[in-house]
Amino acid sequence: MLIAEPLDLPEWVNGLAIGVASVQGATYASGFRDRKLDLFGVAVIGIATGLGGGFLRDLLLNRLPVALTENWYILVAIVAALLGMLLARMFRRVDWMITVLDALALGLFAALGTTAALVSGLPFVPSLFVGVITAVGGGFIRDVLLNMPISVMHVGSLYAVAAAAGSLALLLCNEANIGLEISVPLCISVTVVLRLLAVRFGWSLPEQRMLKS
Amino acid sequence: MLIAEPLDLPEWVNGLAIGVASVQGATYASGFRDRKLDLFGVAVIGIATGLGGGFLRDLLLNRLPVALTENWYILVAIVAALLGMLLARMFRRVDWMITVLDALALGLFAALGTTAALVSGLPFVPSLFVGVITAVGGGFIRDVLLNMPISVMHVGSLYAVAAAAGSLALLLCNEANIGLEISVPLCISVTVVLRLLAVRFGWSLPEQRMLKS
Amino acid sequence: MLIAEPLDLPEWVNGLAIGVASVQGATYASGFRDRKLDLFGVAVIGIATGLGGGFLRDLLLNRLPVALTENWYILVAIVAALLGMLLARMFRRVDWMITVLDALALGLFAALGTTAALVSGLPFVPSLFVGVITAVGGGFIRDVLLNMPISVMHVGSLYAVAAAAGSLALLLCNEANIGLEISVPLCISVTVVLRLLAVRFGWSLPEQRMLKS
Repeated sequence: MLIAEPLDLPEWVNGLAIGVASVQGATYASGFRDRKLDLFGVAVIGIATGLGGGFLRDLLLNRLPVALTENWYILVAIVAALLGMLLARMFRRVDWMITVLDALALGLFAALGTTAALVSGLPFVPSLFVGVITAVGGGFIRDVLLNMPISVMHVGSLYAVAAAAGSLALLLCNEANIGLEISVPLCISVTVVLRLLAVRFGWSLPEQRMLKS
Repeated sequence: MLIAEPLDLPEWVNGLAIGVASVQGATYASGFRDRKLDLFGVAVIGIATGLGGGFLRDLLLNRLPVALTENWYILVAIVAALLGMLLARMFRRVDWMITVLDALALGLFAALGTTAALVSGLPFVPSLFVGVITAVGGGFIRDVLLNMPISVMHVGSLYAVAAAAGSLALLLCNEANIGLEISVPLCISVTVVLRLLAVRFGWSLPEQRMLKS
Repeated sequence: MLIAEPLDLPEWVNGLAIGVASVQGATYASGFRDRKLDLFGVAVIGIATGLGGGFLRDLLLNRLPVALTENWYILVAIVAALLGMLLARMFRRVDWMITVLDALALGLFAALGTTAALVSGLPFVPSLFVGVITAVGGGFIRDVLLNMPISVMHVGSLYAVAAAAGSLALLLCNEANIGLEISVPLCISVTVVLRLLAVRFGWSLPEQRMLKS
């Protein structure tokens, strides 16, 4: 098993992923016309959706949140959220593009979370957990703040499962001494492919059920 | 006053308490048929209910969550939650047994939280607070994630009060230089007895009220 | 730019601000007669509203929460919440006084959060973020725990904006090498004046909206 190094991405990649998530959060929130969310509320949703997963990851790993170490993280999330709000109609028309970009961001966040957990010395299962939380945590916080059922916990299109599969691929590579230059692209690919196939073919996890008795 | 040592429990005791809490969370969630919770959602509820109190404790004490240091914690919570879902009917039929085991887990979590707070050097009242949060925090997170009113904050059967009484007993022992071999069983006993008496006789805290004026 | 020192307030100032926030939280919660909140629930609301902002600040800054380092913080929050519950009718009659005191507490929490962030070495935008979270975080947690829409995110009376303006004033002073003896009173004044003007004249942020297209 490799000791993973931290995953160092070019800033524009990371910024794009955060921006896509924030746009997606604000577009989602703009659907609720009976809740008079104001501009501050939209900014909060942007920060929650774009940076919330990373905040949860860093809280769990007991370290200063990366998003607080530089000015641009919060600014990108707020600007993207305001754009997502203003251009919600447009973004909904290019729904498929948002779905693709969002799947890429999902895979990227899973890779960032999983590698950060490995660097912190966590074992296999907790690293998978942190990877999934990093990927879907923003959506959790968004839904809690909007006082909505948490969409990722309900029957949908393999959102969390796709992130878990990507994170699992990365972890298995790591066990097999395969480095980040292979495992990270694999993690992202697995996530994106599984997520897009699920959207395309309507795959979902079964609903909770009890055994007859 | 003693400097408390960390409370070192046999793993099976800790695992059983986590499992019971997760079963209880999933059984509770299975009651809501109008929310199409999927299998991932059930796993999340299991992790939240079984491990959430410990996560909150470790976040408050500013340390790496214990549940992330080994593989089995998360696995136990997930497996227990899936069992709780599948066998919800059966678990509801042995309701009294779940109530007893859950009261034991409540007392155990209170003892784990209170001693961890003392080890971190917290004073009396904050240690009591951390003890109660550890015991009831899982239920808090469960209800927030299910977008339900938080049951432990509403008129019920002395759930949080039982945990607080147990934690208080442990803290008073500690002030009186009585060691963990006495104070921990006392904490658990006080919690269990008070909780079960409250369930049996329908004791509850008064509802909030205003003074007439 | 100055390296800010931690803001050391007399305990009674800090305690009063926490007490005011807790009273306000309990008075708010007492309005919901259909939710049978019990006394423990009221205590939780008091702790959440009075100390929640500080808890979030300290979690984000990765340090032990200040409110856990001494006994009096939690006690003040609980006692204030019980008073706020019992005397809700009276407090509602002196609504304007609560609004003024609450605006003072808002400014004070913003100053405490912003200076704590600067001491932790955070840059400009994250310090502003932490300042605002410290000021309005208690209300966030209160509303999540009450399973209500988060009032500060919805069209209202410049609550978060007032805190952000105060925090911004403090940060600009800091950039200009102006010390805490000036910047902290300025932060509080800006927050209070903006908040009270907004309440008096019904100023609010615009609701979220899409561009026509």
